[in-house]
Amino acid sequence: MPHITLPDGLPGITGPLAFRPETAKPLRALAEVLLRGPSTLSSADREIIATYTSSQNDCHFCQTSHGAAAAHHLGGAPELASNLALIAEIKRDFEAAPISAKLKALLNIAGHVQQGGKRVTTEDIARARKEGATDIEIHDTVLIAAAFCMYNRYVDGLATWAPQEQEAYLPMGARMAQEGYVTSSEQSPAPHPEAVNA
Amino acid sequence: MPHITLPDGLPGITGPLAFRPETAKPLRALAEVLLRGPSTLSSADREIIATYTSSQNDCHFCQTSHGAAAAHHLGGAPELASNLALIAEIKRDFEAAPISAKLKALLNIAGHVQQGGKRVTTEDIARARKEGATDIEIHDTVLIAAAFCMYNRYVDGLATWAPQEQEAYLPMGARMAQEGYVTSSEQSPAPHPEAVNA
Repeated sequence: MPHITLPDGLPGITGPLAFRPETAKPLRALAEVLLRGPSTLSSADREIIATYTSSQNDCHFCQTSHGAAAAHHLGGAPELASNLALIAEIKRDFEAAPISAKLKALLNIAGHVQQGGKRVTTEDIARARKEGATDIEIHDTVLIAAAFCMYNRYVDGLATWAPQEQEAYLPMGARMAQEGYVTSSEQSPAPHPEAVNA
Repeated sequence: MPHITLPDGLPGITGPLAFRPETAKPLRALAEVLLRGPSTLSSADREIIATYTSSQNDCHFCQTSHGAAAAHHLGGAPELASNLALIAEIKRDFEAAPISAKLKALLNIAGHVQQGGKRVTTEDIARARKEGATDIEIHDTVLIAAAFCMYNRYVDGLATWAPQEQEAYLPMGARMAQEGYVTSSEQSPAPHPEAVNA
């Protein structure tokens, strides 16, 4: 049961986002620019960085929903099962997974950010540069990993409800990949009544 | 030296914020609503939660700048030194500090969020409720602590430069308390050229 009273039937982060529209707006905008905005990194790669960070934080909702989004970015229905298997392999041991050397170097950075900002070393950065990563790609990798250390704590720190089975996340992942994180109704959020009565 | 080439002379988070205006906008908007938006928690209390979380993450720039902002919210020049001493006492041992039982209960939640979302217990929440905390105050405490787990990792994960001495942070803290986190020039940011060339 969630630690606070959240709207019924909304899994994971969607409950607290609906509960507090004022904070939902920048939280959604940040995910949108990081995961779907213009970038030399594909959305699939960025969702994989988000998924891996969330798995290191043991956040079931975030790793499963963003893993499904990554699988959808990687291809349509025929390849969905093999894409999901690839995501599972990356979470288990990305160094051994069939992905680019550059993405491995970025996941190495993300894993160190998850442990703490000071854990990122000059060697981690040199490895990423050697594989062709630019300053902005390194910047975005650090910020995606840092942001998911926030989203994961937000989801689990409020003890939100989430489905266990992966099937429940497939339509969600498709929506995240195709429609993104910003909904039109949240462009001008009405404030939470308790906040306004301050 | 920072891991990537950041604009010169901008300490802590202000370097990467200037480097990537597209992500700066939601990052600044989130800090503004969490720390200065309408709330039944004072901005001083919210800055103290941010400061304590940042100290647990060992982020020098964030704990010193937000500690200075908290001290400014608590009062003007005559009390600044004693307010800074109070902030130092809270970081050292908030349970023994001369602050409200409610703020102690919220700092206890923030400390557990810093360790990981699942570390927040029903006992932590019951203690906060007993001291009068509302659902939205508990929500905001969890999100402030989670957000600073992001900001701290962003600052240290890029190895940003920051002044060591507390004096350098006093005018910064005053600006943060009085003018906030959103600057007019960042309302419509120009995108980073490397991102646009994707």
